[in-house]
Amino acid sequence: MSGKISVGILFLFCSLSLGVHTLEAQSEEASSRDALMIRSIFDETLTGGQAYDWLRFLSLQIGGRLSGSVEAEQAVEYTKTVMNDLGLDRVYLQPVMVPKWVRGAPEYAYFETAPGLSTTVPITALGGSVATPSMGLKAKIVEVKGIEELEQLGRNKIAGKIVFFNRPMNAQTIQTFQAYSACVDQRYSGAAESAKYGAVGVIVRSMNLRLDDFPHTGGMSYGDSPISSRIPAAAISTNGAELLSATLSLNPETQFYFKQNCRTFPDVKSYNVIGEIKGSVYPEEILVVGGHLDSWDLGDGAHDDGAGVVQSIEVLRTLKAIGYKPKRTLRAVLFMNEENGLRGATEYASEAASLGEKHVFGLESDSGGFTPRGFQFDTNEANFERIAQWSPLFYPYFTDRFELGGSGADVGPLKPQGAVLAGLRPDSQRYFDHHHSDHDTFDQVNKRELELGAAAMASLIYLIDTYGANAPE
Amino acid sequence: MSGKISVGILFLFCSLSLGVHTLEAQSEEASSRDALMIRSIFDETLTGGQAYDWLRFLSLQIGGRLSGSVEAEQAVEYTKTVMNDLGLDRVYLQPVMVPKWVRGAPEYAYFETAPGLSTTVPITALGGSVATPSMGLKAKIVEVKGIEELEQLGRNKIAGKIVFFNRPMNAQTIQTFQAYSACVDQRYSGAAESAKYGAVGVIVRSMNLRLDDFPHTGGMSYGDSPISSRIPAAAISTNGAELLSATLSLNPETQFYFKQNCRTFPDVKSYNVIGEIKGSVYPEEILVVGGHLDSWDLGDGAHDDGAGVVQSIEVLRTLKAIGYKPKRTLRAVLFMNEENGLRGATEYASEAASLGEKHVFGLESDSGGFTPRGFQFDTNEANFERIAQWSPLFYPYFTDRFELGGSGADVGPLKPQGAVLAGLRPDSQRYFDHHHSDHDTFDQVNKRELELGAAAMASLIYLIDTYGANAPE
Repeated sequence: MSGKISVGILFLFCSLSLGVHTLEAQSEEASSRDALMIRSIFDETLTGGQAYDWLRFLSLQIGGRLSGSVEAEQAVEYTKTVMNDLGLDRVYLQPVMVPKWVRGAPEYAYFETAPGLSTTVPITALGGSVATPSMGLKAKIVEVKGIEELEQLGRNKIAGKIVFFNRPMNAQTIQTFQAYSACVDQRYSGAAESAKYGAVGVIVRSMNLRLDDFPHTGGMSYGDSPISSRIPAAAISTNGAELLSATLSLNPETQFYFKQNCRTFPDVKSYNVIGEIKGSVYPEEILVVGGHLDSWDLGDGAHDDGAGVVQSIEVLRTLKAIGYKPKRTLRAVLFMNEENGLRGATEYASEAASLGEKHVFGLESDSGGFTPRGFQFDTNEANFERIAQWSPLFYPYFTDRFELGGSGADVGPLKPQGAVLAGLRPDSQRYFDHHHSDHDTFDQVNKRELELGAAAMASLIYLIDTYGANAPE
Repeated sequence: MSGKISVGILFLFCSLSLGVHTLEAQSEEASSRDALMIRSIFDETLTGGQAYDWLRFLSLQIGGRLSGSVEAEQAVEYTKTVMNDLGLDRVYLQPVMVPKWVRGAPEYAYFETAPGLSTTVPITALGGSVATPSMGLKAKIVEVKGIEELEQLGRNKIAGKIVFFNRPMNAQTIQTFQAYSACVDQRYSGAAESAKYGAVGVIVRSMNLRLDDFPHTGGMSYGDSPISSRIPAAAISTNGAELLSATLSLNPETQFYFKQNCRTFPDVKSYNVIGEIKGSVYPEEILVVGGHLDSWDLGDGAHDDGAGVVQSIEVLRTLKAIGYKPKRTLRAVLFMNEENGLRGATEYASEAASLGEKHVFGLESDSGGFTPRGFQFDTNEANFERIAQWSPLFYPYFTDRFELGGSGADVGPLKPQGAVLAGLRPDSQRYFDHHHSDHDTFDQVNKRELELGAAAMASLIYLIDTYGANAPE
């Protein structure tokens, strides 16, 4: 090895090293600027935040906001007014036709072990279900742990009976949304599948990890089965399910009665509510932050998804309050009809496509207003690695768990347009105590937890706006 | 460079590399065994856990357990019975003399802006405070934001008045315990300091980040000031504090009235409750896991610290249930009198020292029964680095935030004996909504969150038992 080469290599090494140091210095400077910006975002949201007050109004003055209801329309008006008052560059309504399913009179149910020996249990009609006959429906009831058991039982043991789906959410699954995913087929498809074997009705154990007396509703579908074959379906509280199961094991002849007069009306017109801050450098690139404005009609929908709605508005309010001028266009989109149709999200993406809008990023909050733990990202691995490098910036805020995979139902339709998607991930332990039930109420939301989520979302939006949703090509 | 040397270096490299691989393989095997053990701990606690049922009894059947009260003694009896029923190797009571402070009749307070124009506000006597005169105490009230303002105001503006300490917890501080630490001097020393300037009473804003109507009590001290100079002190709810402050800014002549007849009795005998599983290899090395059995008399002490008590027992129950035989001796210690004296912890450490017991590790849970986020460790940096290598094992359970510094008040006295100390760190956002108030109740505890904390504690105890509290010398 010659001296010259050595010197050459040394020189090369020094240059590289110098280059690295300059890059590092730049990167340290950027990182420190980002840390300060994120600190000011959290400071603003935690002291000047209005999300909690907006949620109070949405929850206590309006209440449950099922698509097609008067409350849903009040929520459209209210959130439009709130965003107008923020002085955004543009606030507008996007019309969308939504389903209108109405619960009607409170449901009623009991089981009967012998004539005159009956025990009432709390039930709630599943969203989209047909009614029972007007005098109610009474039949023997057969318990299964899942749809696959229907075939094993066969038509003989099912025809003329009510099927009772009773597979509980798995307590050993740490992420409760995974436990939910592993059970929700019973609620969504239980009626359609049971009808194929001649069942006359379906009762589903509520998707709830607690043992309590709240029945939890939620969407269900008859698929493309003819109207004549549709059977009524309701959820029973977890305590009710335990009691019914124990009773059935003692007396398989137990009969079940339930009565509900829910009904589906023709679609009605509703709206997505959209607020926008125009980008100063790349106005054509759109970053969406959103939640869904509709909720179920039980409780007041504070966690699902009032929280996501007010957090999304708060992101824009906070960034404006600290004087941040986004390079890209920021939109808070309050989607209508996530719960039973996803019509708002579908319409939003469809109109974006037809207008030739360029959506680069979509962030959703639809997992409750609990302490944020981090984000999930729907993007390619290389881009995720790039984004994950920001996670230390979120360490001081306990929100630094960045994971690849997952985002949100409402931003999902933007994926075919190439948008990077993300979802806020709050602590999930309490979520299904409330979800779709009378127990999803404003008093169950903690102001700071809600605000920390909004601040984390604003911080991520800031970083995406600054560095782009994808690495520069 | 000769070929021979190259071969030699290659050989050396291979040997090293082989050695590394063997070590890595061993370490991978250990890590996989640890991961399986921790999985089985969580599975057991989340399905067979009894902590929530024990807490229900402690909270709803017994209630607030202030040192020296009948309830505290009931809690001693109950938890002793619970641990006896678990079939531990040894369950015993350790006598300790504790203070007995009694609240007496409910406190009453109002402020008066003009004769006949009065507004009642919720207050609660601070633990250890003297009573007001039997007809109550009425005086002008002067607001300060902290003890340092007393000197600025001077005796002229303070003498004969009630001092109103109104520095709020800082909403921008993410870790609420830090915000608490930055305020609690007002509660602890406010009365003693104000008396030096001739104040006749003290009202302290509750240590609470929410605006609500619950006054929060807590320990205070007159230091070594003579009995004759002791002035009564009470906490006012945060809403009350805001109202009083606004009123004072409009009318500085506002008078404040309060009445409380709390009283300190002579010390009485109580107990630490201790349950033990004998170590199979190093029985002389003791690992302590604990919480405090006493609570304030407001609410039922479910979070502070019923949660820590039942989690500590659950650690032993879970490890026994999965058939784990500890190498070292495990003790669940339920300390008496953390809240107003720390007598139980002091007595425990003192007796350990005089018996020549070797405490190598102390883990405390005294930050509420919320979702666990990780642990803090009080040890040297090198040992912390060793322990922090286990944190990825806790990632699947969202409890992997390991930090250096901090543990718990009750295990603190074991430090001079060389024990490594640790504290469970649950999510802190809701803690001060409940702390020391009527709002610290069983219904505010989530079963899964409580159990996840217990399982995380059991997992850490397993690792410490397996690998030692300190690196082998």
